[in-house]
Amino acid sequence: MHPDKPHEIDIVKTPSSKINSVDFDTLSFGSTFTDHMLVCDFREGKWGKPVIKAYEPFLLDPSAKVFHYGQAIFEGMKAYKDEHDDVWLFRPDQNLDRFNKSAVRMAMPEVEDWIFLEGLRQLVDLERDWVKKGLGNTLYIRPFMIAVGSGVIAAPSTQYRFMIILSPAKSYYSGEVKVIIAEHFSRAANGGIGAAKAAGNYSAQFYPTKLANEKGFQQIIWTDDATHTKLEEAGTMNVFFRINDTLYTAPVSERILDGVTRKSLIALAQREGINVEERSVYVDEIIKAAKDGSLKEVFGAGTAAVVNPIVGFSYQDTYYELPKLDNSIALQLKDKLTKIQYNLAEDTFGWTVKV
Amino acid sequence: MHPDKPHEIDIVKTPSSKINSVDFDTLSFGSTFTDHMLVCDFREGKWGKPVIKAYEPFLLDPSAKVFHYGQAIFEGMKAYKDEHDDVWLFRPDQNLDRFNKSAVRMAMPEVEDWIFLEGLRQLVDLERDWVKKGLGNTLYIRPFMIAVGSGVIAAPSTQYRFMIILSPAKSYYSGEVKVIIAEHFSRAANGGIGAAKAAGNYSAQFYPTKLANEKGFQQIIWTDDATHTKLEEAGTMNVFFRINDTLYTAPVSERILDGVTRKSLIALAQREGINVEERSVYVDEIIKAAKDGSLKEVFGAGTAAVVNPIVGFSYQDTYYELPKLDNSIALQLKDKLTKIQYNLAEDTFGWTVKV
Ligand SMILES: Cc1ncc(COP(=O)(O)O)c(C=O)c1O
Ligand SMILES: Cc1ncc(COP(=O)(O)O)c(C=O)c1O
Repeated sequence: MHPDKPHEIDIVKTPSSKINSVDFDTLSFGSTFTDHMLVCDFREGKWGKPVIKAYEPFLLDPSAKVFHYGQAIFEGMKAYKDEHDDVWLFRPDQNLDRFNKSAVRMAMPEVEDWIFLEGLRQLVDLERDWVKKGLGNTLYIRPFMIAVGSGVIAAPSTQYRFMIILSPAKSYYSGEVKVIIAEHFSRAANGGIGAAKAAGNYSAQFYPTKLANEKGFQQIIWTDDATHTKLEEAGTMNVFFRINDTLYTAPVSERILDGVTRKSLIALAQREGINVEERSVYVDEIIKAAKDGSLKEVFGAGTAAVVNPIVGFSYQDTYYELPKLDNSIALQLKDKLTKIQYNLAEDTFGWTVKV
Repeated sequence: MHPDKPHEIDIVKTPSSKINSVDFDTLSFGSTFTDHMLVCDFREGKWGKPVIKAYEPFLLDPSAKVFHYGQAIFEGMKAYKDEHDDVWLFRPDQNLDRFNKSAVRMAMPEVEDWIFLEGLRQLVDLERDWVKKGLGNTLYIRPFMIAVGSGVIAAPSTQYRFMIILSPAKSYYSGEVKVIIAEHFSRAANGGIGAAKAAGNYSAQFYPTKLANEKGFQQIIWTDDATHTKLEEAGTMNVFFRINDTLYTAPVSERILDGVTRKSLIALAQREGINVEERSVYVDEIIKAAKDGSLKEVFGAGTAAVVNPIVGFSYQDTYYELPKLDNSIALQLKDKLTKIQYNLAEDTFGWTVKV
């Protein structure tokens, strides 16, 4: 017997892979998982040894805090395979940083950097056959942490489980996206948890989104809850508005998620000499710009779709259609970002990390 | 074989009870559970047959929606035993009603009335030995529903699990309660989910509450997130303010939980000829009243503690101590309500339901 090496991860491989039973051409987003997952438990004030083992269900007590008080946070990121079969991560440090900020806001323990980063690397490395070549093919990575301690008293858990699961994904095309600008419902409160990637922020949006869907709109652009005059972000995307040749996007705040795609697009746009302003974007200026024709583009930015052009939006029951452009800045930025992610263009920013 | 009777619940009893291993004198709130629980699954658009069976952990997929998107709601109620060994529920219809309102807001299916009410009744009946006689002893009842469908796409689950678990509780005494009035953090957004008993609303409060605890305060009185000028409610209690001989409490809204204790106390106070006003309560009027001595009492109202007198509060780093009264309206109302719950006083309202 010898003492464990520090920063060691146990790997217990499954005897057989299910990869051959998966049809990679018909994947629906987030529903197929790879053979292994990473699990690391927090007990008595410290993180235990991470284990990579078979992806499988696990037992929880009916009184587990995650069920009752929603202590749960997550991240969403992707791995990309290039032409040489090398696998790349995109700015994983940013996801780690945001994950631990979410943890603090939800009174959960921060995960140790090496558990997140090295856990991620070893797990993706083990599953590299699940990352398919070709633009649009990715391995979606879902790190998350839940409160597993038991007891129905509304107080933070003392026990947590950090996990990473992986899901192969195809190019995300959601059809034409029309959005509604929120007039009544809201996503986040001032002084609330909007800036955290906390589970409860997402289910809060399901009902208003369902109402929007019933009216033929795919998503909602949330406005500030106090006045509904400022445009903030969509369900799982930050939002950019192009008026003439300038891009506008809301500044990150305690109500808005600090998106990795958002900040990468801003950096790329600046490098390309495109004017970008991070400032409050008001509903009435966008309506005015839509009416006078200076509103050229609206697009969402997030890991899942990278850039999601919006074809039109509704506000106070009026529908505003956006022009169809030949020189879309959205698509231009999407192309540049995607090429960096797939190692098809030089990464002058130092964003990509080889697995 | 004969077809199932409609509205039938399967009961699978545990071979032996753990009741003799429980010390009912040293129970800590919400940490001991009875022998059985109720489980009912929702699949393919409908509720299955409820089962009462052994309380035990259950398996969930790592991608279960409850972990990632926080689709989870709950209720909190109690059973009481009277001198004749009869067991009573208090306004269970109100909890059912609120549960289903929470379900709608979280895009979850409403539970059928009979599953909730008859499930509750049969489960409590089976566990009646766990309800101890004597004022303060109760059986805390926790109905809850979680999204158990798998898949990491931010959309409502198609599969849910409704459960009821039971926890014997002693009289809830939390010591002297001092509170902080929220100046920055918030519990709920306009157009948000504050009125739902959704899991995510609770973990959102843990971090600010921890900061308050570190300053020596047990709880926070939340204010409206837009202006922080209106007093709303505490973590798991509605709040009443007594100025001279009138009670004031915030009206229920989409930011505030419609508490069963709150509405019962209002009805009781009205019956007793105590003046109660449901209207916005402003921080500055409470500060003024605290300074001029007209603020007599502040108390929380909720199922766990029934009435929780507050001894003082802090606002903008000034501490305001409340007077110690001989004729506390809070304690008078608590006494009246408790007597109805334990069947020690006539229930002229028709609130109690025999199990
Ligand atoms: C609420 C919200 N906003 C924005 C984003 C975009 O963030 P990122 O670009 O890091 O994926 C996401 C998705 O992660 C999100 O959930
Ligand atoms: C946020 C909140 N407010 C108020 C209450 C009080 O409600 P009730 O009297 O129904 O227990 C609770 C507890 O259930 C609560 O969670």
